[in-house]
Amino acid sequence: MSEITATYHTYTKIGQGAKKAEGIALGLTIGSWTDLPLLEQQQLAKHKGRVESVQEFHHDVHPVHKDQIKAELKISYPTANYSADLPAILTTVFGKLSLDGQIKLIDLSFTPGYLENFPGPRFGIDGIRSLLNVYDRPLVMSIFKGVIGRDLDFLTSQLREQALGGVDLVKDDEILFENPLTPFEQRITASKEVLQQVYEQTGHCTLYAVNLTGRTSQLRDKARKARELGADALLFNVHTYGLDVLQELAEDDEISLPLMAHPAFSGAFTSSVFYGLSSPLALGKLIRYAGADFSLFPSPYGSVALEKSAALGIGVMLTEEAPLKRSFPVPSAGIHPGLVPLLMEDFGIDSIINAGGGVHGHPQGAAGGGKAFRQAVDAVLGGMTLSDASARHPELAAALELWGTK
Amino acid sequence: MSEITATYHTYTKIGQGAKKAEGIALGLTIGSWTDLPLLEQQQLAKHKGRVESVQEFHHDVHPVHKDQIKAELKISYPTANYSADLPAILTTVFGKLSLDGQIKLIDLSFTPGYLENFPGPRFGIDGIRSLLNVYDRPLVMSIFKGVIGRDLDFLTSQLREQALGGVDLVKDDEILFENPLTPFEQRITASKEVLQQVYEQTGHCTLYAVNLTGRTSQLRDKARKARELGADALLFNVHTYGLDVLQELAEDDEISLPLMAHPAFSGAFTSSVFYGLSSPLALGKLIRYAGADFSLFPSPYGSVALEKSAALGIGVMLTEEAPLKRSFPVPSAGIHPGLVPLLMEDFGIDSIINAGGGVHGHPQGAAGGGKAFRQAVDAVLGGMTLSDASARHPELAAALELWGTK
Repeated sequence: MSEITATYHTYTKIGQGAKKAEGIALGLTIGSWTDLPLLEQQQLAKHKGRVESVQEFHHDVHPVHKDQIKAELKISYPTANYSADLPAILTTVFGKLSLDGQIKLIDLSFTPGYLENFPGPRFGIDGIRSLLNVYDRPLVMSIFKGVIGRDLDFLTSQLREQALGGVDLVKDDEILFENPLTPFEQRITASKEVLQQVYEQTGHCTLYAVNLTGRTSQLRDKARKARELGADALLFNVHTYGLDVLQELAEDDEISLPLMAHPAFSGAFTSSVFYGLSSPLALGKLIRYAGADFSLFPSPYGSVALEKSAALGIGVMLTEEAPLKRSFPVPSAGIHPGLVPLLMEDFGIDSIINAGGGVHGHPQGAAGGGKAFRQAVDAVLGGMTLSDASARHPELAAALELWGTK
Repeated sequence: MSEITATYHTYTKIGQGAKKAEGIALGLTIGSWTDLPLLEQQQLAKHKGRVESVQEFHHDVHPVHKDQIKAELKISYPTANYSADLPAILTTVFGKLSLDGQIKLIDLSFTPGYLENFPGPRFGIDGIRSLLNVYDRPLVMSIFKGVIGRDLDFLTSQLREQALGGVDLVKDDEILFENPLTPFEQRITASKEVLQQVYEQTGHCTLYAVNLTGRTSQLRDKARKARELGADALLFNVHTYGLDVLQELAEDDEISLPLMAHPAFSGAFTSSVFYGLSSPLALGKLIRYAGADFSLFPSPYGSVALEKSAALGIGVMLTEEAPLKRSFPVPSAGIHPGLVPLLMEDFGIDSIINAGGGVHGHPQGAAGGGKAFRQAVDAVLGGMTLSDASARHPELAAALELWGTK
């Protein structure tokens, strides 16, 4: 019997975890069991939710309700009960249940066979590396800044500066939508021209991820048009649309562009210890299953910080062994060149070093910022300290002076 | 200048609310201000976020961080910054911000002119009343129970029982998806036949809301097909798809069916006091703006309970004066006939009394349960106590004996 296993964290009185788990397993599947005649039990057995395990942590007492302790429940739901799409799965395992007091969905475990319903990233880490022809280091990405109300000249000159610094990717600001000054299609064509010029000048290739926005039913045509115009990649605010919308974009052969999932809005359902989804599930596993080639998430270093274990957990979910391609972890916010050794230690070579202020705020501008990041990466790969490397690299030296190494 | 005003609850040190608000207003719009040359300030003024008000509640101390107090921030975002769709609006007002520590989005205020972008419910309360020809009482709804793994005969006989009790609406179980035993289209046609028979037998009209599920891009065709087959209404798990998906279904003239929004998954982002969206915004205002004719939400009475003020707030958002039609509040879970006076006091005539166990668990079956609810409604409208009315109505008497009046 094919099943999906959900792991939950909740609070319960000591010894009550099993009863709670059984209530969920039945309530979210066939409703009742012991009252049923034997014949009906036989008919419904293959639809019945099943408690896999219940673990009570007797020393992990609820901060307010001192008579309750933390419990981890693992419950399996037969795949015969729902269609093979994320809305159906989430409705089953965390629909009504999300409203039923303090309970958090920590993980979902799909069998490899069932995973075939989720093609995952089209390009994945290896595919993106092929596009860029960069195999042996973390990629460096930077972000447009302060582009609302600005025109195409402003945008392209900011793009040029960033590309000249040697960053591999530049992404749109996620709050840049369709607007008369810098319309979607013109952003694509104008950026293409600038990045081609930089390539001819420096031999360095930079990809630009344009923000795919608008009404849901028009995204597909808009993305196809983007491809036709030669777009490099699409940024997508998946959590204000829906995971299945992302998946349909990823599956569409006529789009066939790298997809970058932005975490906007996800804090609404990942931030609480008691409710919602774990960050590794929401920004790691499900984003990969839905087909994003990149997943942005708050780094554990900045002011908008994620707990380190959660950020590392996202990285694991995006890259661990699975029958689908790996997605690039993009820990974001608060990143400056001095953090590169830590980033590479925490997220490895197969990750993206992504900065906004850490590029644009560089004393030598965005080009200097990009260079400083690339110099820091090379230093780490060459086994040098940043401090030693900065003796040869004025951009890195300036960055370290401004931001330090923590 | 057209703007949307967002109201947030957050925590801050005394006297720091204004600075925090200003940081948000700038950070989510043009990024910086005081550093800009005067000419650029002039150019960007119409895109700048604006702090409307900051209110600090000095006695509402954070439960853990005792140096922080609760603050309410109101910030306006120019509509020139985003396209007129809910994904763009939510990304702007609560995208990155949702990840930035303890902050909860309480309300969004659209100007009447801007609201024209959101047509709202196609039918609304008045339209649904016209369909049913019932104008002077709350509607009564019941829910299929335990239908996973069951065949069409089981479903239709359960439907018949419910309809015979005089309920106005019957909704699918939200966890019933496309399946070989009771496929979507067959559910529609078989139910239609049964409800027609009941109508011929009793003269009472019951509408059936079928669960619209599957991949996002196929929902539209599936809904059109449902209409073609004579479906009465569509149930939709909007929060696992996206608000804009609901809006597109509501706007589609070729679908033109009443839409019932289910709250499945919404607890993930409404339950925390510190994070996410308020329930009145998520299950009230936004569901109405996105075009649902009905919004289900946890009642304040049952075991899966919403705080009373939140449940009432949802009701207000769904029905208050606005340039769009009103949606039916459907407080759900834990409802039995004994609660009808309280429900009508709390949610008024223009609401729906919705029960699962309170219908099916009746000693005389679902037909008895439906009758008991209708009898309770009539009693309240007639100015009688339930206890007095039960002398004349054995179904109501049985319900009160079983469940009491609280």
